[in-house]
Amino acid sequence: MYKNFPDAKILDVDLTSGNIKTRVLSGEVYRLYPGGSALGLYLILQEMDPKVDPLSPENMLVFSVSPLTGLPVSGTSRVTTTTKSPLTGTIGDSQAGGFFPMHLKANGWDAVVFRGRAEKPVYLYIDGDKAELRDAANVWGKVTGEAERIIKTELGHEDVEIAQIGPAGENLVRYASIINMCNRANGRNGTGTVMGSKNLKALVVKKGKGLKPYNPEKFKEFSKRVINMIKENPNIEGLGEFGTDGDLEGFSDEGFLPTKNWTTGYFPEGAKNITGTTMAETILKDRDTCYACAVRCKRVVEVPGIVDPLYGGPEYETAASFGSYCGITDLTAVCLANQLCNMYGLDTISCGATIAFAMECYERGILTREDTDGLELKFGNEKVLPELIRKIAYKEGIGALLAEGSKRAAKAIGKGAEELTVEVKGQELPAHMPQYKPMVGLIYAVNPFGADHQSSEHDTFLTLPKDSLPIQRLGKIGTYRTYDNPFEIDDDKVRYAFDTQCFYSILDTLNLCQFVWGPSWELCGPDETLELCRLGIGWNTSIFELMRIGERRINMMRYFNAKAGFTKKDDYLPKRLFEPMPDGPSKGIQIDEKKFNEAKELYYEFAGWDKESGNPTEATLRKLSLGWLL
Amino acid sequence: MYKNFPDAKILDVDLTSGNIKTRVLSGEVYRLYPGGSALGLYLILQEMDPKVDPLSPENMLVFSVSPLTGLPVSGTSRVTTTTKSPLTGTIGDSQAGGFFPMHLKANGWDAVVFRGRAEKPVYLYIDGDKAELRDAANVWGKVTGEAERIIKTELGHEDVEIAQIGPAGENLVRYASIINMCNRANGRNGTGTVMGSKNLKALVVKKGKGLKPYNPEKFKEFSKRVINMIKENPNIEGLGEFGTDGDLEGFSDEGFLPTKNWTTGYFPEGAKNITGTTMAETILKDRDTCYACAVRCKRVVEVPGIVDPLYGGPEYETAASFGSYCGITDLTAVCLANQLCNMYGLDTISCGATIAFAMECYERGILTREDTDGLELKFGNEKVLPELIRKIAYKEGIGALLAEGSKRAAKAIGKGAEELTVEVKGQELPAHMPQYKPMVGLIYAVNPFGADHQSSEHDTFLTLPKDSLPIQRLGKIGTYRTYDNPFEIDDDKVRYAFDTQCFYSILDTLNLCQFVWGPSWELCGPDETLELCRLGIGWNTSIFELMRIGERRINMMRYFNAKAGFTKKDDYLPKRLFEPMPDGPSKGIQIDEKKFNEAKELYYEFAGWDKESGNPTEATLRKLSLGWLL
Repeated sequence: MYKNFPDAKILDVDLTSGNIKTRVLSGEVYRLYPGGSALGLYLILQEMDPKVDPLSPENMLVFSVSPLTGLPVSGTSRVTTTTKSPLTGTIGDSQAGGFFPMHLKANGWDAVVFRGRAEKPVYLYIDGDKAELRDAANVWGKVTGEAERIIKTELGHEDVEIAQIGPAGENLVRYASIINMCNRANGRNGTGTVMGSKNLKALVVKKGKGLKPYNPEKFKEFSKRVINMIKENPNIEGLGEFGTDGDLEGFSDEGFLPTKNWTTGYFPEGAKNITGTTMAETILKDRDTCYACAVRCKRVVEVPGIVDPLYGGPEYETAASFGSYCGITDLTAVCLANQLCNMYGLDTISCGATIAFAMECYERGILTREDTDGLELKFGNEKVLPELIRKIAYKEGIGALLAEGSKRAAKAIGKGAEELTVEVKGQELPAHMPQYKPMVGLIYAVNPFGADHQSSEHDTFLTLPKDSLPIQRLGKIGTYRTYDNPFEIDDDKVRYAFDTQCFYSILDTLNLCQFVWGPSWELCGPDETLELCRLGIGWNTSIFELMRIGERRINMMRYFNAKAGFTKKDDYLPKRLFEPMPDGPSKGIQIDEKKFNEAKELYYEFAGWDKESGNPTEATLRKLSLGWLL
Repeated sequence: MYKNFPDAKILDVDLTSGNIKTRVLSGEVYRLYPGGSALGLYLILQEMDPKVDPLSPENMLVFSVSPLTGLPVSGTSRVTTTTKSPLTGTIGDSQAGGFFPMHLKANGWDAVVFRGRAEKPVYLYIDGDKAELRDAANVWGKVTGEAERIIKTELGHEDVEIAQIGPAGENLVRYASIINMCNRANGRNGTGTVMGSKNLKALVVKKGKGLKPYNPEKFKEFSKRVINMIKENPNIEGLGEFGTDGDLEGFSDEGFLPTKNWTTGYFPEGAKNITGTTMAETILKDRDTCYACAVRCKRVVEVPGIVDPLYGGPEYETAASFGSYCGITDLTAVCLANQLCNMYGLDTISCGATIAFAMECYERGILTREDTDGLELKFGNEKVLPELIRKIAYKEGIGALLAEGSKRAAKAIGKGAEELTVEVKGQELPAHMPQYKPMVGLIYAVNPFGADHQSSEHDTFLTLPKDSLPIQRLGKIGTYRTYDNPFEIDDDKVRYAFDTQCFYSILDTLNLCQFVWGPSWELCGPDETLELCRLGIGWNTSIFELMRIGERRINMMRYFNAKAGFTKKDDYLPKRLFEPMPDGPSKGIQIDEKKFNEAKELYYEFAGWDKESGNPTEATLRKLSLGWLL
């Protein structure tokens, strides 16, 4: 309906038949589901039964951007993959940055839908309106760097961007990622596994030009203003200089860095080695960027003969999952693990966390050297990582077990191993401790696609001064108070979790980077998001409309899950998180389990979800313009 | 918490003891209840039992403005009175414009609370920080014009504004109003009756200066822009030229002008006579305005020897209630009735509608000439109006019965009279037919303080073209579609009713005039409201925060009602509205009762109100920062 809202152009690829169709979704409809997994789910829920086997041809996989993708300003080049997750069985949602997203959009496409299964390995080549399936026989089985080189050589030119799976996806490791530029990942939820199950190696797009803004002159000013904000902001400068890993040591110093499979939050023996400042001082070779972004938070590291700069450097989550989770103190080992994940196409968080889980099993004697093909899976033993990661990617020996993820592996192992997993809905936890950030923990529990740390604002913002920019901004999305005690749980904080979850859901729908556009970061806030929409595509929207879009996406996901059989019982936190912190600066701190459970009940009511089932009520769906699902 | 949000200064007057206190509400709290009945209820719910008798000293009465009141721009000088209504028994909320609101604020006060009961008639005199109760013996019993003259003479100067009750309030007529400038009314809900019960004749404020904007220069530009928008807008020009009554004839032409106690919607014999264009061509003497407003919609009429310009001319609702409701075709009679209501201090809608009800009783033989003190209460007999209105104000004979309002009167009359009332929660319906605007009807039913036509957007906006300004604006508050058939009821329309109710609730909280600031009017929209907050008081808010403020106010009211004993069963529409329209252009049109009832159920779920009781759930209160009520 909105006069300026663009239509969505959708490429629909049936891999079974080889048929490729084009569809246009009118701007009136697109406005309700403007990108990300909101668009993906709109397409999926029209026709797919949420009960399908995620690895069957019936599962659909959608790559989607947003109407804003590729605008010439920081933080707007991201792509979402939406599919039923083979790791969790819920809807899967995973996001990546880089240049690929902008170039996909530059070819005119807002979404690419894959369905069915190709008889033999193929890749999709897109050049503007032209899209064709091509034989991928000679790249199937190749690691990402190799496959990228071969495809580019074959095409006789370099002006393409490639999103692809590695051997892990081909071999159906349940947490296989989709890698673009060899170092950006749609990492979580095993969306790469679904590509593998479809015999789809890659999506190759010809490079094009960024999106022309609706109001080019004012947009240029706006974009410059954002660049200046980046330059003048010490926090963002730190993010650029030290990467997302810049604060790892600080977390350990406070006692909240998940360490040795989450048995402690304190890692004094290793945190300094693997933190971002150390990385910047030692092996950092360069800083990389996504399209049009002035932050340049992406790491490029090199250790001659060991770590190749092509595959990028570790993010905070990766440094934690291969470092502290595993008790590993060697930065090169962490960087190599990161590289191997990007080569094989594995999610670093699930891979590192599953290895950490296996290490605890080993230390406790639940797994023995016989089970591990002779690998000594002790915490801190970095020597096992390369071989173990390879075994996972190729599902060899112990690798075949761990390729299923920690939840399934624990079940297969038995002997109390299930007590040692740290996952929600089968997805391993990112490196933010709910003991420190109980509302992040709440969102871990209720988030439709398993534990995720980028689906809401962190509790720690609420301890900032009242007149600080983040607190002022939070007022626009429903938060009116601050906390002296960061561990407190109360009604206001639950609302904060829910409201900021809705806002992050906007960012994920519009495929915006949270570091640039996060509601409380000191860069672009809610007002700038409105400006982006207005100057970028002529969409004169409001925070209210955006918040409802965000809420709509969350509810579409929960609706999908409900139909797939998920209920409230799947919204748990691992038991061990409710025990008191055992040592270090955080010793004795614990989540009040009763309060946490009350908070979860209240959250359901805030969300308009049924008290018994935890699923959206009919009225909630209708309120969000989702009555068509009923 | 918000660094720029002003504190509220509250004057607290105990009429029993004569004690006057001052309280300051910090900006952190005020921001959650920024004016209107939100502020009134915040103060009332802290200490008053909602079960009190509305006419007892225990009832509290709050006059409140907002942080924006008195800013030098159109539509910002309004005042709300909040108290338990003696007409409905619910929370009462009534709003008026004029110069009084701006001058109350100019003295530095955001709210004046009255409690207790004075031993003898008094008025409150405010001059800046100085506030004192003064003897009102010599104005008690006087009509408003006379009382105003006496007080001003006594004070030896003219630089005061006066909000007062007339004899109707003194005599506890249940729908007595509070009149300022002799022609602006806090009309509905009998808030003037509560003043009468407290022996409080008037609130007299010394004139002062308007509010200085936070950003004076930009505000000046903004204000000029609003003036230009008013000048250039043909709809608003029509409102200025012909008043709110400008379209009365059009409603009849479509068959939806409530006529003869709502037995028909067609009034061809009288609509032209009493419509605003006729008024403008005949007896209109001048156009009046509220402080700083360039619209000038207020009528000044004169009929020498009969209608005095001091008391103003009729609004649309008044022209309908004394005109078409009563089958009266004479404009002078309507204007005289309006004048008498402003002299005696009576709500014109409830007064006219109660008389129309009595006329139908008379025509049906339920009331006879004996019951009516000899008055021939036939539809169309304008001769009875002056005497009957006087009898009501002084509770003489039939007047004492009708002074109770149509619901209580019908109960007292019996003989099937109760079938003939057109009220919700005891408040008579304003002149917008639910048969024509089913969502206005829905809000009539569920609105906490009885039937009200200014508590949501009207259905008719949804038939405007998709690219029209109102539809574009509605997108910002949750409406994304239009309708060919204005009578349709569906989920989207219920959401429209709820969302626009929340927006109107913002306007009522901030004491903004809906003609200038209404979300769909073609003058200032949601964006301009944000600009007003930002430039006016440095409040950098969002539509999301505002919508939640609006929703909070509605829920505070429903909470009050719940505690006073109200439930879902009180959310009805009069039976006769579900019958097909009997004649005229709308013949045969009727509300689909089943769909309407389903819509009401859905509305409760949208609002987060309990399905059984219709009252806010605990979670809904918590979500709106109202957990302190529990």
